[in-house]
Amino acid sequence: MSSPATVTLPIAEAEALAIGALEACGASAPNARATAHALVAAEADGQAGHGLSRVPSYAAQTLAGKVDGKAVPKLTQTGAASLRVNAGRGFAYPAIDAAIEALPPLAHNAGVAAAGIYASHHAGQAGLHAERLADQGLIALIVSNTPAAMAFAGGRRATLGTNPLAFAAPIAGRAPLVIDLALSQVARSKVVAAQKAGKPIPIGWAVDADGTPTTDPAAALKGTLEPIGGPKGAALALMVEVLCGALAGGRYGWEASSFLDATGDSPQVGQVLVAFDPASFAGAGFPARMADIVAAITADGARLPGDRRLAARARAHEHGLSISAALHQEILSIHA
Amino acid sequence: MSSPATVTLPIAEAEALAIGALEACGASAPNARATAHALVAAEADGQAGHGLSRVPSYAAQTLAGKVDGKAVPKLTQTGAASLRVNAGRGFAYPAIDAAIEALPPLAHNAGVAAAGIYASHHAGQAGLHAERLADQGLIALIVSNTPAAMAFAGGRRATLGTNPLAFAAPIAGRAPLVIDLALSQVARSKVVAAQKAGKPIPIGWAVDADGTPTTDPAAALKGTLEPIGGPKGAALALMVEVLCGALAGGRYGWEASSFLDATGDSPQVGQVLVAFDPASFAGAGFPARMADIVAAITADGARLPGDRRLAARARAHEHGLSISAALHQEILSIHA
Repeated sequence: MSSPATVTLPIAEAEALAIGALEACGASAPNARATAHALVAAEADGQAGHGLSRVPSYAAQTLAGKVDGKAVPKLTQTGAASLRVNAGRGFAYPAIDAAIEALPPLAHNAGVAAAGIYASHHAGQAGLHAERLADQGLIALIVSNTPAAMAFAGGRRATLGTNPLAFAAPIAGRAPLVIDLALSQVARSKVVAAQKAGKPIPIGWAVDADGTPTTDPAAALKGTLEPIGGPKGAALALMVEVLCGALAGGRYGWEASSFLDATGDSPQVGQVLVAFDPASFAGAGFPARMADIVAAITADGARLPGDRRLAARARAHEHGLSISAALHQEILSIHA
Repeated sequence: MSSPATVTLPIAEAEALAIGALEACGASAPNARATAHALVAAEADGQAGHGLSRVPSYAAQTLAGKVDGKAVPKLTQTGAASLRVNAGRGFAYPAIDAAIEALPPLAHNAGVAAAGIYASHHAGQAGLHAERLADQGLIALIVSNTPAAMAFAGGRRATLGTNPLAFAAPIAGRAPLVIDLALSQVARSKVVAAQKAGKPIPIGWAVDADGTPTTDPAAALKGTLEPIGGPKGAALALMVEVLCGALAGGRYGWEASSFLDATGDSPQVGQVLVAFDPASFAGAGFPARMADIVAAITADGARLPGDRRLAARARAHEHGLSISAALHQEILSIHA
C-alpha cells in the first residue's frame, strides 16, 4: 500500500504538532501555543496560506533568532481608549491576543478603543482576530502592513505591502459578518504557483520591473503586484502603512524583511486594531440593523462575506484537517 | 461681444453666491454658511462634482423640504471617546463641523475618538473633513455611505453606495497627506458624461441589469457600477454600510433616496469619523516617521495623494474660481 498523499489530523492534534515544532526551535510555551492556535484556526477556515504551511518557516525564523520565540508582549495603556503594544520582535499572535484581551473593556467604557502594535510579524488570517472582537459584541477594524510588494501610485518600486484589512461586526443569533482582504488584486502566492506550474498569469495581476503589465510570472515576481483599483488600492495600502508604521510605530513595507525566510532582522511590521461599541453609537437599534443587512444580502441571492470560511471551519471540526503528507513529515522532522 | 463661457469669482464671492441661493430656499444662515463653505472648498480643490454644481439641487431639496435647511445638529457624548450626532435630516456639513469641533479634545484625552452621524446627507469632498482633523495633529479616517449604486459580491441589484473613504495624517512643515476615494472604479458622473457625449465606456466601469459587463452607458446606468477589485471593493463598501448604517444609525445605501433630486424623504445616510492622537501610540517618533513616508514616495518619483488638490487650491485662492456662466446664472436665478 502506498503512503497517502495527505494526512488528516484532529484540530487538537494539529495544534500539538505545530506547538512541538515551534518549541523545539526555542519558542516559549505560551508563544508556541498562541501561534499554533492561530495557524490551525486559519487552516481550519480554509486559509492554508496562513495555516500549517507556515510552521517550517516560523520554526526556522525562531531557530535563527530572526524572531524572538521567547518575546513577551508589553502592553501600555496610554489613554482611556488607547493601547501601545510592543511585540518585542516576536510573533504577532501573542501581541494580538494581548490587545484583544485588553480592548473590550476600554471600548465598552469609552465607546471606541484602539491598539497599536509594533516590532511585530505576520498577522496571519486577520479576519480571525476581528471575529474574536465581534464575538464580544464589538465592531472591529484591523489592519496590518506586510513586506514590500506593490508600488506607490505613480511609482515603480515594490514599497507598499499588500496590507490586509479585516473587519467584523456581530450579528444576533449567528456568527459575525467578517471581511478579510489584502489590497492587492491577488496574493503573491498565486503568482508563485503559476510560475511553478509553468502557466501565464492574467493581465491585471502584476507589472514587471519596468511597470509594464505582464503575463510572465517570473517577470511579475521581479516587478510589483497590482493593487485593487489601481491608484485607489495603492492609496488604501498607503493608509495602512501610515497606521501601522507612523501611528503604531512598526516598520514600513519597504523597510521590513520577509515573513518567509530566516535571514536578516525581524520584519517588525505593525498592526492597528480598532474596536467600536455599538451601544455608544446607534445603541439599542444595532441588532435589528445588522439583521437588515443579512436580509438585504440574502434577498439579492448573495452571500455574507466569510460564510465560506464558516463552512470550512465546521467541516474541519467534524472531520479534522487534511494537510499534505510532505508538510506533515516536514513539521514532524522539526521536532526531532 | 458674446457672453463669456465661464465666470471667475473670488472665493469669498463664490461663497456669498451659494449662501444667497441656499438662504433664499429657506436654509438657516449657519447651515447655508457651512454648506457653501464646503462646496466652495471642494470647487477650489478641483473637485467640481462636490462643488458649486451642487447648489441648484441642494437649493431645490431645501425648498421642497426633502432636506431640513433649518436643522440644528444634536451632538451627544456617549462615552469618553464617542459622539453620536443627529444631523436632523439637514445637510451633512453642519453635523460634520460639529463633530470636527468636538472630536479633537476627546482624541487628545483618550488616544482615539469617534463620531457617528445619522439622518445625514451628501458628505461632499470627505478628504477636506479629514484634512481639518489632521490640521489639528490627528490622524483621521472618515467614511460615508451614499445611495445604492453597486451590487453585493455575488449580487445583482444596486444596493451598496460607492461609499467614499477619506484618510488624513499630519506632516510637519507641509500640508497633511490626504487620501480621498470612492469604492467604485469610477464615479457615476463619468458614466453620465459618456452617455451625454454619446461615447462608449470602457469594460470594467459597470455592468448592465443582468450583471454583464457593458460599454453602453445607458445600459450601465440601469445596472450597477463596478467596485474596485471586484468582490474586495464590494466587501469594503459593505464595511462602510455597517459603520454608517448599523453603527452610526444612518440609512443604508439601498434605503437612501437620491442626493441629487428633490423628491422623496431625506436620504438620511450616515458618516463615521475616527480620530487618532499619534501622541498616544508611536508618540515622539511620529513626525520623523511621516517624513520617512514623504521621502520614500518622492524617492520613487511618485506624488503624495492629494498634492494635485493643493495645487488647484493655491490657484483658486490666487485667481478665483471659474465656473460656467450657465451655472452662475442658474445659481443667481435662485436668489430672485
